[in-house]
Amino acid sequence: MSDGEEARVLEKALSSYYHYEEYALNEIWKPRMCKWMSLSNLQKSKIPWYGKYLGELKRCIMKNAEFYRLVVQRSVAYWGCNPNPDQWSQPTSYDMDKTVLMFTQILREWSQECQDERDLLLTRLRAFLNQEIPNKFERRVVKVLIPGAGLGRLIVDLVNDGFCVEGNETSYHMLLLSRFILNGEHPKEGLTIYPFVHTFSHQLSHEHQLRPIRIPDVRISEMLNGVCSMSMSAGSFVDLYGPPLGIKWSEYYSADIEMIRYREQNASSVRIVVTNFFIDTGSNILDYLETISHVLEDGGYWVNFGPLMYHYENDSQVEVTGDIDPTTGEVKNVNRFVPVKGLELSLNDLIQVACDQYAFDIIAKEIGIKSGYGRDPTGIALLGYMCNYWLFKKRKKSFSIC
Amino acid sequence: MSDGEEARVLEKALSSYYHYEEYALNEIWKPRMCKWMSLSNLQKSKIPWYGKYLGELKRCIMKNAEFYRLVVQRSVAYWGCNPNPDQWSQPTSYDMDKTVLMFTQILREWSQECQDERDLLLTRLRAFLNQEIPNKFERRVVKVLIPGAGLGRLIVDLVNDGFCVEGNETSYHMLLLSRFILNGEHPKEGLTIYPFVHTFSHQLSHEHQLRPIRIPDVRISEMLNGVCSMSMSAGSFVDLYGPPLGIKWSEYYSADIEMIRYREQNASSVRIVVTNFFIDTGSNILDYLETISHVLEDGGYWVNFGPLMYHYENDSQVEVTGDIDPTTGEVKNVNRFVPVKGLELSLNDLIQVACDQYAFDIIAKEIGIKSGYGRDPTGIALLGYMCNYWLFKKRKKSFSIC
Repeated sequence: MSDGEEARVLEKALSSYYHYEEYALNEIWKPRMCKWMSLSNLQKSKIPWYGKYLGELKRCIMKNAEFYRLVVQRSVAYWGCNPNPDQWSQPTSYDMDKTVLMFTQILREWSQECQDERDLLLTRLRAFLNQEIPNKFERRVVKVLIPGAGLGRLIVDLVNDGFCVEGNETSYHMLLLSRFILNGEHPKEGLTIYPFVHTFSHQLSHEHQLRPIRIPDVRISEMLNGVCSMSMSAGSFVDLYGPPLGIKWSEYYSADIEMIRYREQNASSVRIVVTNFFIDTGSNILDYLETISHVLEDGGYWVNFGPLMYHYENDSQVEVTGDIDPTTGEVKNVNRFVPVKGLELSLNDLIQVACDQYAFDIIAKEIGIKSGYGRDPTGIALLGYMCNYWLFKKRKKSFSIC
Repeated sequence: MSDGEEARVLEKALSSYYHYEEYALNEIWKPRMCKWMSLSNLQKSKIPWYGKYLGELKRCIMKNAEFYRLVVQRSVAYWGCNPNPDQWSQPTSYDMDKTVLMFTQILREWSQECQDERDLLLTRLRAFLNQEIPNKFERRVVKVLIPGAGLGRLIVDLVNDGFCVEGNETSYHMLLLSRFILNGEHPKEGLTIYPFVHTFSHQLSHEHQLRPIRIPDVRISEMLNGVCSMSMSAGSFVDLYGPPLGIKWSEYYSADIEMIRYREQNASSVRIVVTNFFIDTGSNILDYLETISHVLEDGGYWVNFGPLMYHYENDSQVEVTGDIDPTTGEVKNVNRFVPVKGLELSLNDLIQVACDQYAFDIIAKEIGIKSGYGRDPTGIALLGYMCNYWLFKKRKKSFSIC
C-alpha cells in the first residue's frame, strides 16, 4: 500500500472506534427497545423488569464507548493522524463489526477471566522453553516471532520470560488497540469494559450479561521490566518474512524491490515462530508454511496452537495474483479470478506437507484440546474449539561429502 | 398464506433440492478447482494428491445430488406438484444454502453416528416417561406434541415407545425430506449420503471428509409397527396451537376466523409438549410460552432440550404486527417496523417468567449439558452447544371455595 492508502486504512479503523457508540446503540440497543415497545400490554406485564434492563444495557454500551474514545484520543497523537474526526475516511460496516469483536479479543488477552484459555498454550510452550533454553542469559538473544500477535499478550508473556520477541500484525484495529494497551501505562485492572453486552444468546442471566470486566489483569510495564526486547511489525506475514521471491504476487506479497531485500534479510533470522490461532487465517496456507520455513533458522522451532477454522472457507470473493519476474521484479501472468476460498488442508494433510515438503520434524503433537474463545467460564456460552498443538523442528541442511 | 403462495413456497424448496448439484459444484467444488489451478508449479508439486482429491469431492457431491433427485421424484407425485421442474418458482440463495444444511439435519436425526447426541434428550425423557406413564395401554391415549419436529426422528422414537405423537414443522425443506424418509419404506442403511463434503474446516483428514454415511439407522416401518398414531402438521406453531386471540397478528399468527376456531379446539389438548432445539427459533419467545401453556392440559408437562441460541439475534429485518379485534377479527394498530431481533431472554429470566407468569412448576432442571450438532465424533469438529434440559409441569387451576 502507498502511504496515502495506509493512512486511510488507519483512519477508517480509528473512525470505527470513534463511531462505536452510535453503531452499537443502533444495532444492539435500539431494535430491542423497539421490539419491547411493540409488545402487547399483556406481554409487557410478564417481564416488568425488561425496560430497566434495556436502560442498563444502554449505559454499558456508553461506558464501552468511553473506553474507545480514550483509545482514539491517545492514538491520534501517536500515529500522527488528522485531529479532526469529521475528516477521517468513513468506516465500512465490516470495520464497525470489528469494534464489537474487539471486546472479545480484549477479554481473551487481557482479562483474568481468560487466564485458563491462555494457559492451554502457555503451559505447553513454557514446558518446552524451560527444557530447551533454561538459561536466562541465552534467552536474551533468542528471537521469537509471533505472527497474528493481536493485542500483544503472548509477546509480553514471552518478554517477561526473558526472550527477544517480535510480533507481527496486519489489522489496524489490532495495532491501534495493542499500542494503547501495551504503552498506556495502565494500572492493573485500571480500565473497565462490558464485553458481553453485544451477545444475547447463551446468557445465564441478564445481570451476568451486563457485568463489567476489569483490564489489564497485570501491570504491563512491570512485566516488561524496563527491558526493550519487544517489537511489533505492521503488515502481511508473508510479505515481510516470506521467501524473497517464489510466492505468487498478490495484495499480501509485494514485488517491490525494497520488500524483496527486506525478506532476504529475514531469512533464517528467528529461532522460534509461535502461531497462536493464526495458521487458519490466510487464503493460502502453503504461503504460510513457506514463510515459516524461510524465516526460521535451521534447527529452529515452530510452535502452533489453535483450531483449523479456515477464515476464508465461505468467502465468495476473488483476489488478483501473478508471477514476479525474478530479474526485473515485473508482475506477469496476472490472474484476476483466484478464489479467496480453497486449499483448506485437513490436519493430517497439513502436518504431512509440513514434514515431507517443508523439512519439519515432529517433536510433539497433540490434537483435540478443548478451548473457549473469550468464553465466559461461568456462563452457558458456546463451547468453543478443538485446538491442535504441535512443536516442529526445522531440519538442519545436510551436506553430502563425496 | 393463500394456497397459491403455499404452492410456490413448496416449489421453491423442491426446486432447491433439484438444483443442488449445480449449486454445490459452483460454490464448493469449482472455486477449489480454480484455486488449485492458480497455484505455482512449485506449490502444486507439494500436494500432488490434491487434484485427485478434488475429483473425489466432485463425485461425492454428485452422489448427494442423486439422493436429492430421488427425494424430488418421490415428492412431486405425493404433493401434487407440477411435474415440470422448469416451471417451478426459482429458489433463493437462502433456499439453496438450506440444501447443504439439510445434510447435517439428516445426519443428526437418522444416522447411527449421532445416536449419542440424540441420547442426551432421549435418556432423560424416557426416564421421566417410564416413571410417569409406565402403562403401555395408557400411553396410546397420551398425546405428545413436538413443535419443530424436523425430520421426524423424535416422533418415531416416541411412537415406538407407545405414544400418540403429533409433530409440527414450518419449513418445507424439512417437510419434503421428512415425508420422503418417514414414508419411503427405506431398508435400514439403504441410502448413502456424503454430509461432510461441504465443510473444509476442522477436518482430520481428507479421506475422513469424503466418507459416506448410511441412513436411516433403523427400519422405520418396523419402529412404527403398523400403529397409526403419528401425524405431522405444517405451519407456524403459534398459529396452529396458540391461544385463539391475544397474540399480536403477524406472518406467524393469523386473524382468519377458521384459524381462531382451530386454535380454540387445540386448547388443553396435549399431555406433553417436547421442544427439542426449538425454543430459540422464534422472533418472540413469549409467544412460544403462551402457545405451550395454551395447548397443554392442566397438569401437563413441558420437556425442553437445547441451547439458547436465538436464531434471529443478528437479523436486521423488521416484521409487521398488529392487534386482532376480538369481535370483528379485523387487524388494527399495524406496526410495520417491529425488529425481528430482540427479546432474547436469558436462561434464568426465561425460567422465571415461565414459572411466575405462565404457571409452570419446575420438576427437573439441568444446565450446561454438552452436545454436538450433527458433529462427527471421530473428528476435530467444533464442540457444539451447552444445552439445557428441563421438565416443567403446568399447574392445575385451583378453585377457591368460599
